[in-house]
Parts: sequence; C-alpha cells; structure tokens
Amino acid sequence: MQGQQQQAYDRGITIFSPDGRLYQVEYAREAVKRGTTSIGVRTADGVVLVVDKRTRSPLMEPKSIEKLHKVADHVAIASAGHVADARQLIDFARRRAQVEELRYEEPMDVEALTKAVTDNIQQYTQVGGARPFGAALLIGGISDDVPRLFETDPSGTSNEWKAVAIGSDRADVQSFLEDEWHDDLSIEEGVELGIRALSRIREESVEPAGLGVGTITVDNPVYEELSDEEIQEYVDDLEDIEDVEDEQE
Amino acid sequence: MQGQQQQAYDRGITIFSPDGRLYQVEYAREAVKRGTTSIGVRTADGVVLVVDKRTRSPLMEPKSIEKLHKVADHVAIASAGHVADARQLIDFARRRAQVEELRYEEPMDVEALTKAVTDNIQQYTQVGGARPFGAALLIGGISDDVPRLFETDPSGTSNEWKAVAIGSDRADVQSFLEDEWHDDLSIEEGVELGIRALSRIREESVEPAGLGVGTITVDNPVYEELSDEEIQEYVDDLEDIEDVEDEQE
Amino acid sequence: MQGQQQQAYDRGITIFSPDGRLYQVEYAREAVKRGTTSIGVRTADGVVLVVDKRTRSPLMEPKSIEKLHKVADHVAIASAGHVADARQLIDFARRRAQVEELRYEEPMDVEALTKAVTDNIQQYTQVGGARPFGAALLIGGISDDVPRLFETDPSGTSNEWKAVAIGSDRADVQSFLEDEWHDDLSIEEGVELGIRALSRIREESVEPAGLGVGTITVDNPVYEELSDEEIQEYVDDLEDIEDVEDEQE
Amino acid sequence: MQGQQQQAYDRGITIFSPDGRLYQVEYAREAVKRGTTSIGVRTADGVVLVVDKRTRSPLMEPKSIEKLHKVADHVAIASAGHVADARQLIDFARRRAQVEELRYEEPMDVEALTKAVTDNIQQYTQVGGARPFGAALLIGGISDDVPRLFETDPSGTSNEWKAVAIGSDRADVQSFLEDEWHDDLSIEEGVELGIRALSRIREESVEPAGLGVGTITVDNPVYEELSDEEIQEYVDDLEDIEDVEDEQE
Amino acid sequence: MQGQQQQAYDRGITIFSPDGRLYQVEYAREAVKRGTTSIGVRTADGVVLVVDKRTRSPLMEPKSIEKLHKVADHVAIASAGHVADARQLIDFARRRAQVEELRYEEPMDVEALTKAVTDNIQQYTQVGGARPFGAALLIGGISDDVPRLFETDPSGTSNEWKAVAIGSDRADVQSFLEDEWHDDLSIEEGVELGIRALSRIREESVEPAGLGVGTITVDNPVYEELSDEEIQEYVDDLEDIEDVEDEQE
Amino acid sequence: MQGQQQQAYDRGITIFSPDGRLYQVEYAREAVKRGTTSIGVRTADGVVLVVDKRTRSPLMEPKSIEKLHKVADHVAIASAGHVADARQLIDFARRRAQVEELRYEEPMDVEALTKAVTDNIQQYTQVGGARPFGAALLIGGISDDVPRLFETDPSGTSNEWKAVAIGSDRADVQSFLEDEWHDDLSIEEGVELGIRALSRIREESVEPAGLGVGTITVDNPVYEELSDEEIQEYVDDLEDIEDVEDEQE
Amino acid sequence: MQGQQQQAYDRGITIFSPDGRLYQVEYAREAVKRGTTSIGVRTADGVVLVVDKRTRSPLMEPKSIEKLHKVADHVAIASAGHVADARQLIDFARRRAQVEELRYEEPMDVEALTKAVTDNIQQYTQVGGARPFGAALLIGGISDDVPRLFETDPSGTSNEWKAVAIGSDRADVQSFLEDEWHDDLSIEEGVELGIRALSRIREESVEPAGLGVGTITVDNPVYEELSDEEIQEYVDDLEDIEDVEDEQE
Repeated sequence: MQGQQQQAYDRGITIFSPDGRLYQVEYAREAVKRGTTSIGVRTADGVVLVVDKRTRSPLMEPKSIEKLHKVADHVAIASAGHVADARQLIDFARRRAQVEELRYEEPMDVEALTKAVTDNIQQYTQVGGARPFGAALLIGGISDDVPRLFETDPSGTSNEWKAVAIGSDRADVQSFLEDEWHDDLSIEEGVELGIRALSRIREESVEPAGLGVGTITVDNPVYEELSDEEIQEYVDDLEDIEDVEDEQE
Repeated sequence: MQGQQQQAYDRGITIFSPDGRLYQVEYAREAVKRGTTSIGVRTADGVVLVVDKRTRSPLMEPKSIEKLHKVADHVAIASAGHVADARQLIDFARRRAQVEELRYEEPMDVEALTKAVTDNIQQYTQVGGARPFGAALLIGGISDDVPRLFETDPSGTSNEWKAVAIGSDRADVQSFLEDEWHDDLSIEEGVELGIRALSRIREESVEPAGLGVGTITVDNPVYEELSDEEIQEYVDDLEDIEDVEDEQE
Repeated sequence: MQGQQQQAYDRGITIFSPDGRLYQVEYAREAVKRGTTSIGVRTADGVVLVVDKRTRSPLMEPKSIEKLHKVADHVAIASAGHVADARQLIDFARRRAQVEELRYEEPMDVEALTKAVTDNIQQYTQVGGARPFGAALLIGGISDDVPRLFETDPSGTSNEWKAVAIGSDRADVQSFLEDEWHDDLSIEEGVELGIRALSRIREESVEPAGLGVGTITVDNPVYEELSDEEIQEYVDDLEDIEDVEDEQE
Repeated sequence: MQGQQQQAYDRGITIFSPDGRLYQVEYAREAVKRGTTSIGVRTADGVVLVVDKRTRSPLMEPKSIEKLHKVADHVAIASAGHVADARQLIDFARRRAQVEELRYEEPMDVEALTKAVTDNIQQYTQVGGARPFGAALLIGGISDDVPRLFETDPSGTSNEWKAVAIGSDRADVQSFLEDEWHDDLSIEEGVELGIRALSRIREESVEPAGLGVGTITVDNPVYEELSDEEIQEYVDDLEDIEDVEDEQE
Repeated sequence: MQGQQQQAYDRGITIFSPDGRLYQVEYAREAVKRGTTSIGVRTADGVVLVVDKRTRSPLMEPKSIEKLHKVADHVAIASAGHVADARQLIDFARRRAQVEELRYEEPMDVEALTKAVTDNIQQYTQVGGARPFGAALLIGGISDDVPRLFETDPSGTSNEWKAVAIGSDRADVQSFLEDEWHDDLSIEEGVELGIRALSRIREESVEPAGLGVGTITVDNPVYEELSDEEIQEYVDDLEDIEDVEDEQE
Repeated sequence: MQGQQQQAYDRGITIFSPDGRLYQVEYAREAVKRGTTSIGVRTADGVVLVVDKRTRSPLMEPKSIEKLHKVADHVAIASAGHVADARQLIDFARRRAQVEELRYEEPMDVEALTKAVTDNIQQYTQVGGARPFGAALLIGGISDDVPRLFETDPSGTSNEWKAVAIGSDRADVQSFLEDEWHDDLSIEEGVELGIRALSRIREESVEPAGLGVGTITVDNPVYEELSDEEIQEYVDDLEDIEDVEDEQE
Repeated sequence: MQGQQQQAYDRGITIFSPDGRLYQVEYAREAVKRGTTSIGVRTADGVVLVVDKRTRSPLMEPKSIEKLHKVADHVAIASAGHVADARQLIDFARRRAQVEELRYEEPMDVEALTKAVTDNIQQYTQVGGARPFGAALLIGGISDDVPRLFETDPSGTSNEWKAVAIGSDRADVQSFLEDEWHDDLSIEEGVELGIRALSRIREESVEPAGLGVGTITVDNPVYEELSDEEIQEYVDDLEDIEDVEDEQE
C-alpha cells in the first residue's frame, strides 16, 4: 500500500488501517529509529544501561544530552527517539515511583512501574486529541534482589529482556548481543559488553565523553553513572582486546 | 467496494458505510488476526486457556509476553491482537471484578464480567474521539460450579463457546477443535487438546517456553498457570502420540 | 446520486443531504438488514417474540446469542442488527424500567418505555460526536391488561404493530405475516405463526436450538422463554402441517 | 450553483454559502417536504389540525403514527418531516408549557410557547456539533379566548396563519386553502375544510383510520381528537358534496 | 479569486482569506441582502423605523412577521436578513436592557446597548463552533433627550446614522434618503420619508398591512407602532403627493 | 508558493507553513492594510493620535466611526483594520487598566498595558478554536512623566515608536514621518505633522469632520479629543503652508 | 517528499510523518531561522548574551525590540524566532522562577528552570488544539556559583553549551564560535567574542543601538545590560582589531 492510500491514515487521530495497523504508532517507531542507539544488559548481579552521547558540536556539553535518567534509587531509564517525548515519560515514571514509595513505604516494583508507563503510552495511541509518544525506553532496576530490564515501545507494549538495544542500529546491535550475552556475566562484563556493542556501530573510535553508562547492582541497589575516567578504562581495555583480535585475524 | 470509496470510511470517528458496516471495527478485527493464536477449551470440570509465547529473540523473556492474565481467583483471560489494547481491557476487567467482589462479598459472575467488558468495548465503537480496541479476549472462569468460556470481539459482541480460537490462525484451529472436542473431556485432556491445536499451526516443534497454559477447575476454582516442566510433559506425550500416528500412516 | 456525491454525506456527523435524507441513519438501517430476522406477533391474549439463534460453529452456545432479552417482568425485547449496539439500548431500557417502577411503584407502561428508548436513539442521530445505533428493536409487553408490540428503527421512530418482522428478510416475512395474521389468534397460534414465518426464509429445516421464542400473556404478564423441548413440539407440528400441505399440492 | 460547489456547504456545521444561504437548513426543509401533509385551520371559534395517518402495512396501528400531539390542555401540535426530530420539539414544548404553567399558575400563552420552540430550533442552526431539526410544526391553541395558529420551520422562523399546510403537498393544499378559507367558518366547517384539503391530494378515497383530526375551541379550550366514527361522518358528508359537485359539472 | 480557491474559506470556522477578508461574515452580509428592506430615520424630535411586512400568502398574518421589535420603553429595533438570527439578537438586547435598568434604575443608554449587541455579534465571527449572525439591525431610541439611530452589521461593527436602510434594496433607498433627508424634519415628516423610501422600491402600490412603522419621540420616549389606519393616512397623503408630482412633470 | 499549496495553510487553526510562517496571522495583517490609516506621533511633551474618520455616506455620523478610543485618563488607542476586532482589544485594555488602577491605586504603566494586550493577541494565534484579531493598535499615553507610543500587530508583537502609521497607506506615511519627525517637536507641531501626514494620502482636501485627533501631554496627562473647530484651524494653517510650498516650487 | 504528500502533514494537530518526523515542529524551527541571530557565550566567570536589535525604521525605539529579557536576578533569556511566542515562554519562565523562589527561599536552579520551560514547549507539540512555539531560547544564569548556558528548541529539547548561536545565521556563527571559544575567556572577552560573532554576519558596520548585550557573573550574580556607551567601547576595540587584521592580511 503506497502513496495516496497510505496518506489516508496519517491524518487526525490514531486509527486502524484496513490491514489492522496503526500508522501513527508505526511512524512513532520510525521516530525511535531516527534516534541514537541505547543498550541494556542484564547480568546475574545487576543491570547496565549504555547510551550514545556524542554531540553535534564540540561546544555542546555531552552531559546535557538527555539519554540516561535516574528515576528512583533502584531504577534508571535509557531512552531513544524524540528527546522531549522521552522526558515526559521519564518524569511520569519519576512521579509515579515517588508516589508509590510514599504510599507503600517501599521502593516501587520495577515491573509495576513499567506497566504504569506503558498504560500511559497506550492512552496516547487510542484517545484522540494527541499523538503517540515518539520514544522507546529501557527501564532497568532491582526488585526483590532480582535485576530486571524492560523495554517499552510507542504502542504501549513492554517486554522483559536479558539484553536489548533500541534506536537507530537496533537490528545490528541486537544480533551482536545475541551472540555475546551469556548467563553468568558479571556487572563489569555487562558494562564491557554494552560498550563493545555500541562501539561496533561507530566508524570513529569511542570517546568516553560520547558515552553514558549507568549501573544498578543487587548488592547495592542504587543507580550510579560511570565517570569519564571509569569509562576510559573500559574503552582502553576494549581497544586492547580489539588489537589482540586484529592480531589474531 | 474498493480504493477511493473505501477510504472514505477510514477517517475520523467510527461511522457506518453505505452497506451498514463499521470499517474501523472491521479493521480492528484485522489487528486481531495479525496477533498470535490463543485457544480456549471448556471441559466438564474446568476451563483451559492456551497461548503462544514464542519470542522474536532468544534474549527476550517469554514470561514477559502478555497473553495470559489472571483477573480474579476464578477468572482468567487470554488475548489476541494489539497487546497494549488488550492490557487496558484486562485491567478494566480486574478492577471491575474487584469492585463487584467487595460490594457483594462473592466472586463476580463470569458472564456479568464479560458483559461489563463488552459494554466498555462498544463505547469505543460508537462515541467519537477514540478508536476501537484492536484486541479479542477469551474470558474463562467458574461461576456457580459451572465452567464458562466467553469470547469478546472488537465490536463489543460476546459469545459463549465449548472451545474456541482467536488470532492469526483462527479458522484452521477452530476447525480442528470442532473435529476433536467432545463433551466428556477431562481438564487434562482439555490441556492436551489446546496444546495439540496450537502445535498444528507451527512449522517447528513446540518448546514449553513458547507456550502458556492456564487452568481453572470446578473442584478448585483458582487460576493456575502450568510450569515449563508440566508443559514439557504434555509436549512429550503429544510427540509420542504423533510418532504413533506417523507410524500408523 | 452516486459515487463521489454520496461520499460527501458519509463523513463526520449525521447531516442532511440535499434531498433531506440522513445518510448515516439510512446506513444504520442497512446494518439492521445485515442482521438475522426477528419477529413479533401480537395476539388477543399476549405477545410473542421469535428470533433466529443459529450459530456459525457447532462449538458456540446458542443461548449466548443476544437476540431475545427480558427487560422487566412484563416487557421483553427482540433485536436485529449490530449486536453490541442493541445491547446498549436494551440496558438503557432495563435501567429506565427499573427506575420508573421504583419511583411509581407499578410496572412502567410499555409505550412510555418505547418512547424513552427512541428519544435516546434520536439523540445519536442529531448531536455530533457519535454515530447512530445500528439496531432495530421489537418491544413487546403487557400494560393495563393489553398486549402491546412496538418497533423502533435507527432514526428514533417507533410504530405499534399487530405483527412485524425486522432484519435481513423483513419484506418477505412481513408479507407472509400480512397474509396469515388475524385478530383472534391464541398465544399458541401466535408462537406457531412466528416459527412458521421464520422457517420460511431458511433453506435447511428448523432446529429448536437455532430458535428463540419468548411470550408474555395478559393472564400471566411475566416474560417466559420456551425450552428447546417446547420449541421442538411446535416444530414437529409445523412439519406435520407442511407435510399435509405438500401432500395437498 | 451545482455539483462540487454545492458539496462544499454540505459538510460539518451549518455555515453560510456565498449567496447567504444556510444549506443544512434548506436540506432540512427538504426533509419536511418528504413527510406527509399536515393542515391547520383557524376559525372564529377555534383551531383545527388535520394530519395524514395512512400506514405502509395493514398490520401497523394507525394510532401509533406520531403526527398529532396534545401539548397542554389548550395547545396541540401537528408535525411534518422527520418523525423523531418532531417528537423532540414536541417534548420540549410540553415541558416548557408545564414549567410555565406551574410558575405563573395560568396556561402558557400560545405565542410565547411558539417563540420558545423556535428559539430552540434556531440554536441548532447556528451552534456547531448538531444538525438542524428536520421537522416543521403547526402549533394551534387558545390564548385569552382567541384562537391562534402558528407554523415553525427548520430555520427557527415562525408565522401566524389563518390556515396553512406543511409537508409534501404544501403548495397545492395552501392554494386550495386560500380559495376556500373565509372569516366566518365555524369549527365544524374548519374540520370539513381541513379534511377536504387533505383528501384532494390523495388518489384513493379517504379512510377515517388514515386521518387524524384535533380541535380546540374558545368555548371549551381543551384539546380533543375526533374518533374514527366522527371522522367517518365528515368523510361521508364530504363524499355527498363531491357527488353533488360532480353532478353539477 | 473564483471557484475552487473561494471554496477554501467557506468551510469550518470563520478565518481570514489571503487578502484579509472574513468570508463567512461577507456571506452573512449576503443573507442580509436577501432579506426585505428596513429603514430608519432620525428627526430632530425622535426616531422612526419603517419595515416591509408583505406576506407570501393572504392567509398569513402580517403582524406575525418579525421585523419591528420593542426592546424597552425607549428603544426599538428593526431587522433585516435571517429572521431567526435577528430574533436572538433582539432577545439578547431585551435581556441586557432589562438587567441594566434594574441595576442602575434608569433606562439603558442606546449607544451602550448597541455596543453590547455588537460585542455579542463579534464573538460569533472570531470564536469557532458557530457561524456569524445573518442579520443586520437598526437600533433606534432616545437617551438623555436625544434621538439616536444605530446600525449593526454581521461583522459586529456599528455606526450611527441620520437616516439609513438595510436589506435587499439598501443602495437605492440610501441614495433616496441622502437626497431627501434634512435636519429639521418633524417626526411626522420622518414617518412620511420612511414610507416614501420603502414604497419607491415596490412595483405594486403600498398596502398599510404590508408596512410596519414605529416611532419614539423625545417628548414621549415610549415606543409606539402605528395602526393600519394611521399608516393608511400617510399612504393616502403620499399618493396625493405623487399625483401632484406626476402632474407637475 | 502559490495556489493549491497556499490553500493548505488557510484552513482550520493557525499553524506553521513549511517555511515557518503563520498564514492566518499574515492574512490578519492584510485585514489591517484594508483599513484606513491611523497615525501616532510622540513629541517631547506628549503623544498625538490622528485617525481617518471619513464616512461612506453623508448621513453617517463621523463621530460613530470607532477609530480613536480613550482607555484611561492617561492612555488612548487608535486602531486600524477590522473594526469589531479592534473594539474587543480596546475593551480588554480598558478593563485591564481599570483593574490594575484599582489594585495598585495608580495609573497603569503604558508599557505594561501594551504587554497585556499583546499577550491576549498572541493567545489567538496559537491556541485553536478562534482566529487571530484582524486589527493593529497604536497605544499612546504618559507614564512617569514620559510620553510613550506603542504599536501592536496581529501576531502579538509590540514595538515602541517615535512616530508611526498603521493601516492602508502605512509605507508612504511612515516614509513621510521619517523625513519630517524630529526630537524637539511641540505637541502642536505633532498634531500638525499627523494631520499633514494623513492629508498627503488623500486626493480630496481634508475636512475636519473626516479627521479624529487626540492628545495627551505630560503637563496634563488627560486624554483630549480636538473639536472640529480646533481641527479646522490646523487644516487652515496646513493649507497656508501648502500654498506657500506650491508657490515656492 | 514533495508537494502533495508533504501537505498531508501540515494540517490539524502535530502528528508523525511516515519517516517519524513532526512537520509542525520542523516548520517551527524554520520560524526560528527567520528570526535574527542571538548568541550565548559561557566564560569561566559568567555568561554573556548578545542579540541583534536593528530596527526596520529609524523611528522605532531599539530598546522596544524584545530579544533580551531578565527572568530573575540570576537568569536572563535571549530569544530568536516568533517574538510573541518567545514572550509567552519568557513570561512562563519568570512566573515559574518567582514561584519557586518564594517556595524554597532561594534562587531557582537554572537547569531546573530550563526543564520547566521545555516541558511547557513539549506539551504544545503533542497535545492537539494548539501549534508549537515558533521560538528558540538561550537561557543563561548562575547556579551554585557556576555559569550555565542552555538552549531550548521548538521540540522541547534542551542542551547545555559553552557557546551557541540561534536564529538566522546559526551555522556560520556557530562555526566561528567553535574556532574562537576557549576555556579561559574572561567575561569581557566573552562579550567581545559575542559582538565579533554577530558583526561578522552583517554587511554594514555595527551600531551600538543595534545591539543588545547582557551579562551575569559568578562574583555578582545579577543580570546587567550594557549601556550604548559600554557597547560602543567594545565596538571601537573590535574595529581596531579588525583594522589590525586587515593590515596583517
């Protein structure tokens, strides 16, 4: 179905096409693909989120690129797609997590938080007067001493993952993760895997300032972002490995 | 009626076409057909729901695929179609069942619950400002010691069934159920029938992790999901049968 | 007026065409014609409603086909057309009948109830933001010891009838009723007339499970549905008659 | 102005055309012309309303055809056009007449009631979100011992008349009334004039059951509908007259 | 700008065209031109309003033609254009004049009343969801012993006049008024001027019943409508004058 | 960008065109250009507003032409464009100035008043459901003993000016003002400059009744309109000057 | 994608195009590019904002050009694009900063203020019934003794910068800033850099009245605008430098 016909489903509110698709939702997925890549890796002892923070000008502060967000002590979100849309969802998640924690006096369950976020997303795909959110999220956290990693898409669907990528090079990175991920990764190996996955899709070499890395562990379920120095160490190790790999070829 | 004319009924709110059809509702039915297959089987002593939980990546957690949902102790729902839409309906069903149980101090009647859900669905097909729900549901449960199995469609119509399939291969599976279902199935035979029905439409062999099976029985009207091990036993038996069948051919 | 011009009146809210017609209302009438046939017969001592309950699969429960509905002790409704729409109108009628009975401590007048239902229908044909109801109703009941039988259509018009058909074969069945109906039918003869009228438009022979028959009489103004056994007796008698007729030809 | 241009004014809310016309209102007038004819005759001592109640099937009850309505003891309305629309206006008139009578403890003035009705009609021609009413009314009654006869049209304009027709054959009947009406008609002569006017536009002979006649007189300002027997007498006299006329030709 | 382009500004709410015009307002002015002519004449000692009340059938009551309206003791309004729209504006003026008089315990200033009416008109040209009023008004009255005569148009603009015409033959009548009006007209001469102006645009001779004439004078600031007899005297005099004029030619 | 493309931005609410323009706002500016010219001149000791009040008929009262408006003792507004729109803005300014004066017990600052007005204008260019105001204003007044002169346009932008023209001949008049305005004009010279500027764009000679002139001075910050006699004196002087200029050529 | 297809995304609310873009937001960015250039420079000890205030007529007051705005003592905003839109955002920022300061009794954090502004902007890109803001902002201020400089765009995204340009010549100026900006600029060197950057894109020489320059320093975190004399000094120095540069070439 091309050209004029497709146009018919573009206008006004989100409605079904004759083959049962919601074009506005699919177009919102395209908005996600236009964003940079974000990666989540779940390990036995924690969750890792890795995002691309390269700037389009050397005068821009990388730390102001909104891709990696603390939502509560035990939950963080990495986003891809329309930046301002993602921020709304993250603010929603923060407020919800706070309210629930105040009410029940314990950290909100990561899965329940994901569900609340996707319910909010779904409303924008069914009720008129607004467009869907053009953003996908990776929601990582610890609940009941178990690391959890969820992905949400613009339709309001969520899935739990062992390791997953969203954004512009999703297919390539996901395939790499499927090859490399295994059950007994340590949190450090998870960070390394995420950085390697992201570096593969770049032509130039990785700069620490162009990366954001966050972790939450079962032992210390408090979100932490790695400093540029910490990232640099991983990148150095990574280059050593690649040099070895290159030599081995 | 093709092309330009059909387009006219696609836009804006749900309205009648000259031949008395509601296109948005029919398109929502297409969205259901795009989903995986879910199956319900009513037996003399209970209800069985069987769903397809295959993942598109080995890194995705099958248990996070939202197809099988406990609504109350005595009621569960299997869905097909737009996942986020189905979740809204299931949440609606849960809240309603809770409220009614609190008010009347007894479990809500399964038929009454089905009616409440379909009334909600119908509103979205008549009142403007929103699109219909792109999901079908199988609502199974026990009321007054009687197993009940209802199906809802995107128009807000419901029907009661002895055994029924919704989703991508409905016609094939329904035909198989019509041949195989009989009055005096035990709950175990119902599970077996559901798994056999679902396995017929797959090319590869069935993996327990790719299946979800839930049951509620008259004797113990509490919803239970089968573990992977329990499903594996049914699958093994099923393969034995098929081997025998193959040999007999 | 064909093609492009007609299209103009299809979109958005219900508005007048240049020749003073309301297309959305006429299309809703088409939705009624797409439904199965329902029949009402008024006799000297009561009212009979006969509906078609054939199922599209042997696994579907005929009793779950929503065509015949008790509204209050002394009133019942048979519907044709969009099932979920009809259910909304019937729920509306039930609530109204209950409220009025509570307020005035006597059963609500059947004509007043019909008027309330048609006022509700009319609103959906004039005020924007919703489509008309795609359903016609036969409202039968007893008021002041008099049997009453009303028909409502999607425009919100009602008429009182001695005998009437709605749905897919209205014209044929109505013509048959005009030939056969007479003033001094007993309630049993009314049931027989309704079943004969419905059976005429079927190619296969009538199965009791595929029929729904309800009656309210002046002597006992409480709605009753016939059991499959009772319907079977009528069908047997009917076949005897037809055999005789065939022989006589 | 034809075809495509005209289409432009058909959609959405009621707006002006370049030549200052309101098409939706004019189309609503067409809906009135599609209705049967209703006639009002004012005489020195009262007001007469005559309506066409022929049925489309011998099984339909003529008395259920909604054309002639008592609004208060001293006011009645005859309608033409979209039946369900007219009923809304008549209900509006009834409620208004009741409220005013309760407030001021005297019957509401017929002219004031007409104005209230036309104000309601006008709102539907100017404010968006609804279509105009597709009905015209003849409002007849007695105020301050004076017979009054008003006509309302779909634009919300009203006029007072000595005698007037609305509906399908308005022009013909009005011309007949202009020839035949005179100042000193008695109420009986008014009834006769109305019946004669209506019978002229029918090919078949007039049946009492196919006519509705209502009167209100200054001496007894209480609305009364003639029985079939009373109408039959007028029809008989009418045929005598016509026979005489035929002979005289 | 013709055809298709013009169409673009016809739909939906009142918006600017590329050349800065509001088409719906201009079309509403066309609706005024489709109405009959109304005339206002201000004299040294009062204000005169003259309207056309010819009927389209001899059976219609001329007094029921809504063109001349008392708004308060000291203010009256003559209208042209869409009758039901004008009535809304006049009702608005009446209510406003009443409220203000109650609040300040003196008659509302005519200019302030005109401003209130035009503010109301303007809202319908700017805020969506309704169309402009298709009516122009002549608001005549006495404030502080000074005769005032205002005209309002569908854009919500008002102007004060010595003498002015609105409606179908505005240009011709205005030109006549410009030739004939002078500062020291008496109220009787004002009435005569108005009747002469209106009679000029008619082919047939003027009938008193086809005219409405209202006056308010400084000496007795209470609105009065002339009786048919009083109008007849003016018409007779008028014909004498014309006979003389004809003779003089 | 011509024809069909331009059309796309004309309908519905005010939205951006691909090149970042707001067509409805630009069209509203065209509405301003269709109005007559208004001029503001700031001098060392006050502000002058000069407007065109020519009438289209000798029977229209020039004083009823709404172009020059007192808003508070120390502020006045001259308008150009859609008259009824301008009146809304002026009423808004009056109410705001009153409320602020009541609250702070001192006259509202002219700049703050201008900002309030432009905020109101801006809302109509961004929020749907209404069109922009088709009027420009010159807001002149005295605050803190300083003369201020602001211009507002339909986008909601304001600028402060030494001397400025709005309306049909803005470009010509502005160019004349740029040549003639200087820092040490007296208020009388400011009036003279304004009248000369306006007279240049007229073909016929200036009549005092066709002009409106208002002034506010620092010494006596109370708005005053010149009488016809006062204007006549300026016009006489002006003609003397022009005669001299003509002679000098 | 050209012509007809693009049109489809222009109308009504802000929705996604098939390739995941929001055209109304992109068109709003074009509105920003149509505005004059504004520049922000962060130095070690403060923030500098430089804006273009050239007037289109010598009679316009440059100080009335709304480009540089004090928001609180410690925060200022420079804008580019649609002036009236920017003013709304700046008013929003002012109110928010005031409320927060009152609540927490300390100046609002600059980053938090930026987030509040961008959340407001985002709402206008997702929820229907209004268009996006056609303005970009540079928000500069001091928080916790650290200079901050943020940019917001019409999508509701913000970024932090060392030095940045918005408006018509963004690309050229940004490239110049990238070449010239370094870490240890003093606040005076920041002002000089900003003025040089803006002067490069002008053909004529820079006039102090045509420039606006504001600064906030860590030592004295109170926003100050430079006087014309202060700007003149910078411009003089700048010309000396350029003369030297010219000589060196």
